[in-house]
Amino acid sequence: MLTDVEIAQSAKMKPISEIAQKLGLEDDDLELYGKYKAKIALEAINRLENNPDGKLVLVTAINPTPAGEGKTTTMIGLSQALNKLGKKSVVAMREPSLGPCFGIKGGAAGGGYAQVVPMEDINLHFTGDIHAITAANNLIAAMLDNSIHQGNPLNIDVRNIVWKRVVDLNDRALRNTICGLGGKLNGVPREDGFDITVASEVMAILCLATSLEDLKERAGKMIVAYNYDGNPVTVNDIEATGAVTLLLKDAIKPNLVQTLDHTPVFVHGGPFANIAHGCNSVMATKLAIKLGDYAITEAGFGADLGAEKFLDIKCRQANLDPQAVVIVATVRALKMHGGVDKKELSTENLEALAKGIKNLEKHIENIAKYNLPSVVAINAFPTDTEAELQLLKDTCNKMGVDVAISKVWEKGADGGIELAEKLLEILDTKEANYQPLYDLDLSIKEKIETIAKEIYGADGVVFDKKVLTKMKKYEAQGLANLPICVAKTQYSLSDQPTLLGRPSGFTVKINDLIPSAGAGFLVAISGSIMRMPGLPKRPAAVNMDIDKDGKIVGLF
Amino acid sequence: MLTDVEIAQSAKMKPISEIAQKLGLEDDDLELYGKYKAKIALEAINRLENNPDGKLVLVTAINPTPAGEGKTTTMIGLSQALNKLGKKSVVAMREPSLGPCFGIKGGAAGGGYAQVVPMEDINLHFTGDIHAITAANNLIAAMLDNSIHQGNPLNIDVRNIVWKRVVDLNDRALRNTICGLGGKLNGVPREDGFDITVASEVMAILCLATSLEDLKERAGKMIVAYNYDGNPVTVNDIEATGAVTLLLKDAIKPNLVQTLDHTPVFVHGGPFANIAHGCNSVMATKLAIKLGDYAITEAGFGADLGAEKFLDIKCRQANLDPQAVVIVATVRALKMHGGVDKKELSTENLEALAKGIKNLEKHIENIAKYNLPSVVAINAFPTDTEAELQLLKDTCNKMGVDVAISKVWEKGADGGIELAEKLLEILDTKEANYQPLYDLDLSIKEKIETIAKEIYGADGVVFDKKVLTKMKKYEAQGLANLPICVAKTQYSLSDQPTLLGRPSGFTVKINDLIPSAGAGFLVAISGSIMRMPGLPKRPAAVNMDIDKDGKIVGLF
Repeated sequence: MLTDVEIAQSAKMKPISEIAQKLGLEDDDLELYGKYKAKIALEAINRLENNPDGKLVLVTAINPTPAGEGKTTTMIGLSQALNKLGKKSVVAMREPSLGPCFGIKGGAAGGGYAQVVPMEDINLHFTGDIHAITAANNLIAAMLDNSIHQGNPLNIDVRNIVWKRVVDLNDRALRNTICGLGGKLNGVPREDGFDITVASEVMAILCLATSLEDLKERAGKMIVAYNYDGNPVTVNDIEATGAVTLLLKDAIKPNLVQTLDHTPVFVHGGPFANIAHGCNSVMATKLAIKLGDYAITEAGFGADLGAEKFLDIKCRQANLDPQAVVIVATVRALKMHGGVDKKELSTENLEALAKGIKNLEKHIENIAKYNLPSVVAINAFPTDTEAELQLLKDTCNKMGVDVAISKVWEKGADGGIELAEKLLEILDTKEANYQPLYDLDLSIKEKIETIAKEIYGADGVVFDKKVLTKMKKYEAQGLANLPICVAKTQYSLSDQPTLLGRPSGFTVKINDLIPSAGAGFLVAISGSIMRMPGLPKRPAAVNMDIDKDGKIVGLF
Repeated sequence: MLTDVEIAQSAKMKPISEIAQKLGLEDDDLELYGKYKAKIALEAINRLENNPDGKLVLVTAINPTPAGEGKTTTMIGLSQALNKLGKKSVVAMREPSLGPCFGIKGGAAGGGYAQVVPMEDINLHFTGDIHAITAANNLIAAMLDNSIHQGNPLNIDVRNIVWKRVVDLNDRALRNTICGLGGKLNGVPREDGFDITVASEVMAILCLATSLEDLKERAGKMIVAYNYDGNPVTVNDIEATGAVTLLLKDAIKPNLVQTLDHTPVFVHGGPFANIAHGCNSVMATKLAIKLGDYAITEAGFGADLGAEKFLDIKCRQANLDPQAVVIVATVRALKMHGGVDKKELSTENLEALAKGIKNLEKHIENIAKYNLPSVVAINAFPTDTEAELQLLKDTCNKMGVDVAISKVWEKGADGGIELAEKLLEILDTKEANYQPLYDLDLSIKEKIETIAKEIYGADGVVFDKKVLTKMKKYEAQGLANLPICVAKTQYSLSDQPTLLGRPSGFTVKINDLIPSAGAGFLVAISGSIMRMPGLPKRPAAVNMDIDKDGKIVGLF
């Protein structure tokens, strides 16, 4: 069996200008980054404004387990299959962060024969978007600390700075730091810390912006600290807005690449799916809609986080009109949801599977609440038994939901034909009438309660006292009508990572509420959310290498 | 008067493929980054190996003053003029760091009508080289702290870690930090701090490497810490070498851009000129030599730091054979060296000028010690008087050194014709027989003393006790035959920033000695060297902006 990077490096890519031409883009629309990557000029995006809209399809998944679901791989393979069927399908997906790449994952551009290439570039620096975000984020931090150092004219309370510096790496030693040590010439000492770049609000605004102007407006609104009166200090206040926008002038442009079999893919932006909304950029999704008859996109983590935010935050803000949702599941992961240990996943276990399927059922029910049809994609593994697959299919059929087996990892486009055909069928036959789950007019409290009860299946929500106080403050500051971005564990429908399957009888605890004023949402935090991962004992990086001829090992 | 960015944005650039073609490069040699920037494939560099060598010319300067010298601008204008005279001249220069750009400088790609374009890209992220270096540097730091966190199998002494994290910004609050706080899950607490990226040894090795293999070998040798036995722990020891090389696989390729009038320019690498050697990459310089009949390059700060290191470190390591040196001076800066206050520089002052010229004289004498001919370029300002210019010319003539007035900032190529013609004349008529100042076989102490006496004009060197101890240690470790990289103030020939002109009767204090084992030199530190600048009260960043049509202000 070849590794992912071996498959990718042996792929015969087409020049990206050829891929672009087929999409209807002109040479002048492209800013090439080598022969196989290109950014799309903002002028092109404006020109396409009047193109008719393709059908937008979201690919989401059950709650993730250590067994893996293959959501990204399934999405890529689905689009490959649609193209093989003669349809003009375009993918819009997130770009990978270096942190997980060097940590455990080793890469995040699909897998097997459903990959986006050049995978080694996409997984490393790509076109520099994430580095630009790092620079913009850290310029804000430097200007903030400089303002305090140079006499603190904004009266910033150094105990109440909410803007972290970032690096795009897993680096636990930076989680909690003290900066500004070393005496009067070296800044003002204070508690500090670093997040991973993809957790930066700069990533979130880049992904929600609809234009350079919109990006600048969002950048200026971001809250970096509070002054001694408790009032927010923004990027506008520290006069960093123009420079930040300038740093992002190229990062805002979507990146075009291709799959192994030359299906067009926009890879652009990748915010966290807990403290942010977890979807690729609005600009990339809109380009996919304007250039494709089918635009296939994804959202981070399971449907309770990713799909909910895609539908309640991104689609609402950007006026998107999704037509269907694909929910990816694996027999192995569902068995874990049913209580099976990771080591026992290769053994047939119908009882556990039946129990675990409840997790999938809940996500299917949830998607229906948005008035959208869904199809279940079973990402097949060699260890799945016929009986297990049949049980899974029967359950879906009983719920009136279509289901298809996907083998795109092993077979590329051919492995996705069944799924593609099912998807085309429901797009033709089932009605989609997208509506968000909750009205923005509801109170902050009501909005959080709606998500927790309707999506997670909670009995209710317990708010920390601090959160109730903050709600009042934000209401006074005019932030009450923002959508909610819940930051909770991705492993469970609940806020407790060990409650697998379809938990019930639980309440969700909300212990903090943080405005992302530039992104335009309120982050409701449940538990402690990791914004800076650590490296494992043997990081994936130790196995990476490149020889003098450019042959790469260790990315997969 | 137009600003630099206005001049640059109104320039009609040629497609970079056209510039490359004229140089004799093929389309397949290029990796385009948009229409106007390209990286050169390593294969092309190998293929050109047997091309005849063009004449290598170094542009250096007197000791810098707040009046400004315009070394980079003069270098660019000189090459523009050579091309206008029908010569095939190629520039190899450093790429700017974001730190100074947002701090005071606002840009570093020449000025006026002697600029490299697209200046806004070159000054911002360019082709991502510096970001790649940041990532590589910080991956090493993360893997180092992870090794300590995961049981410290290498027995690393956390009080003796010499590897700093970096950001490519001016951020004084990061100079001295404590990391690893927050308890057992969050690393091991220790004193830490950040440098600016261009101070990273990764930048130095990228600039000295002759191939990807050489880069990997250098990366592995870099010392990151010492263990409890006092022995060095390297990048090889923490198993980061392959991943670091992989992160630098594109950054190692030189970047091709153009001047306002389409002269080819390689902009690649930019290490500090104090704790590192301060020159653009060897790969870029070699490309310029192989593709141009004339290769014009520069080195950081004044000739005592930049030229000395170019000649004793870079040329020696890379087997380069320079043919001439241009020393840039301005009447204004020389008057400052003669004791005139910055506010009084517009008034004629022949007495002060005569005194300040001694600084120039010393640099002229120094270049002769390398058996190289030099020409003085007077970067003219409107405030220079005829009498002042004449005095300067007379002094050079008396020393037997050619001198030319340069007006490239105001007039581009036309303003550099006189300088170009003088340079061509000395290349034709004067003998160059480059030899380094000192033999590598000398002891560390002797090498430092040679530089201090011969180049700085010191009476001698006072070594800190600690330095003498370290000398013995490094001699035992087999590092004794490395060249020396002195880190001292750039403002004076001495180690005291206020001793302008041509100081005498001073000794140089060396208070630390640090091996850059990957770069292949020993850094002798005099005084305290700033590796992380701070932002001024009103950073240049506050004046930067970009409007919805992409028009940029604030870069200059």
